Amino acid sequence: MKYSIGVDMGGTNTDMGLVSENGNIIQRRNIPTNAYTELEPYVRDMMHEIEAMVAEQQALDGQPLTLEGIGIGAPNGNYYTGCVDNAPNLTIKGVLDFGKEIHKYRDVPVVLSNDANAAAYGEYVYGGAKGMKHFIMFTLGTGVGSGIVVDGKLVHGSTGGAGELGHNILIPHGRKCSCGREGCLETYTSARGIVQTYCELKGIPVSSDVTSKMIGELAHQGDLVALKTWETVADQLGLAMANSVTFSAPEAIFLMGGPAQVGEPLLKPLRAAFEKYLLNIYQGSCQICMSELKANEVAILGAAALIKMKSEK
Amino acid sequence: MKYSIGVDMGGTNTDMGLVSENGNIIQRRNIPTNAYTELEPYVRDMMHEIEAMVAEQQALDGQPLTLEGIGIGAPNGNYYTGCVDNAPNLTIKGVLDFGKEIHKYRDVPVVLSNDANAAAYGEYVYGGAKGMKHFIMFTLGTGVGSGIVVDGKLVHGSTGGAGELGHNILIPHGRKCSCGREGCLETYTSARGIVQTYCELKGIPVSSDVTSKMIGELAHQGDLVALKTWETVADQLGLAMANSVTFSAPEAIFLMGGPAQVGEPLLKPLRAAFEKYLLNIYQGSCQICMSELKANEVAILGAAALIKMKSEK
Repeated sequence: MKYSIGVDMGGTNTDMGLVSENGNIIQRRNIPTNAYTELEPYVRDMMHEIEAMVAEQQALDGQPLTLEGIGIGAPNGNYYTGCVDNAPNLTIKGVLDFGKEIHKYRDVPVVLSNDANAAAYGEYVYGGAKGMKHFIMFTLGTGVGSGIVVDGKLVHGSTGGAGELGHNILIPHGRKCSCGREGCLETYTSARGIVQTYCELKGIPVSSDVTSKMIGELAHQGDLVALKTWETVADQLGLAMANSVTFSAPEAIFLMGGPAQVGEPLLKPLRAAFEKYLLNIYQGSCQICMSELKANEVAILGAAALIKMKSEK
Repeated sequence: MKYSIGVDMGGTNTDMGLVSENGNIIQRRNIPTNAYTELEPYVRDMMHEIEAMVAEQQALDGQPLTLEGIGIGAPNGNYYTGCVDNAPNLTIKGVLDFGKEIHKYRDVPVVLSNDANAAAYGEYVYGGAKGMKHFIMFTLGTGVGSGIVVDGKLVHGSTGGAGELGHNILIPHGRKCSCGREGCLETYTSARGIVQTYCELKGIPVSSDVTSKMIGELAHQGDLVALKTWETVADQLGLAMANSVTFSAPEAIFLMGGPAQVGEPLLKPLRAAFEKYLLNIYQGSCQICMSELKANEVAILGAAALIKMKSEK
């Protein structure tokens, strides 16, 4: 039997999964990323868990398994170099060459990309984007990420860092962004941006007691400020999505992540704003879809899907 | 000897050229587009001129020539369907199926795309983008067009209409655009947009007596309002270019068209604005270049280059 490994490297935890050919996560393990400050012990423990999953699966299958590769989705992951480049949110600093380290333990293809790219590719291989040649994925969370597929291939660009639509400047001289610039999409439609909008509309100081999840619940209870917040976010995200269509004329834009889970308070005004901002030649040609992968599986499946990309090259 | 035909279909004139394998325009002819209201007589006369160029070249070469194809750059040209779709600026109305009509006269590959896409591909095959896998072309003129190359292929998208960055909304609720929406890049950095900025800065009504060429000449004479106009345009275009980098991380952005010919009054502040607006991970990775093709050749070469794309598929 053939399997691949998907690794979702987050700032806090690293989730690993053994994934079957048809995209089921058969086994899962995790280690705490923030317990490490060096790559060597981190990869050693990661490989320990991976080998344990492999051994267990071989026992269950009653035969040796073929491991097609290890795919890793990580912040600042660079597909071309296979390295994580100085990710600010990781306790392990510097340029991290995963392939080199992993190959000390096992001779297996290693593919790495940033987490949003991996999520987009997971949607393509295992989710709702199957068979689509052109689509874009927006991931809403602590930040706003994106992954872009053109002609059936993930766009990496000349540097490996393509697809950072969260840092498209939506409103010139707008909100201050953590990247040092102003007006990035992320400052409006990330979880934190949504909280800021709510607090501004409510006329209260921005507080860490407010979460985008709470604002979602309030909207479902009919709270007017919460509803207005999602309408505002929908207008901003709809504009950004419409702008992205002028680039690659995708057949669909996918949406995932915590804030997107709010459902209709966001989606209904989002679809309206999107069509309103869309250039006439694109109207009706691009649908907005929710990711069809489960929230707790998409990162692992996306990482595992990267292996498929490598083997198709 | 092998040749291809490049056809630049503009609203007023249609320029045709016989192009050699290494990208030289050997012969040129033209017919007045706006003298026609039907496709049939237009293509008949177009083919008459093309056959005349072929016959003349065969006589010059002293041997039969191989015509690799006819490439057409046209407003609203759709690569997938091979049709011009209801272009508002043409006197020939409706959906125009060029391949069908041309094949009445000659059995030859016909490839059609919009003019900015063709220009980008011309730069790739014959100009400064040779060998680049990722670049973007912005064309400044009556409108603002763009063509995008990702992984060495022109991006057509799911509809054939990808690459309309002139209609990226740069400033929400900004200037009214001819497309019916507000704040499109085109309303700021097209020839007309530049004239409007100049008149606004000068405090005079927008007048058809002012041209972007005049504003260029004034800038070279040190006129402060003209210089401020180009700085403003540079800031707007630099922001749009920086935003486009978050999509495909190109190694270069090319610029062509009348207003771009002004040179340093635009280019110097443009390079500064571009770097200022660029997300840190892209800084220093993408250069702004002027098209290396001659202004009066790029459209024909670009159209002829489309044939190369088809034969590589």
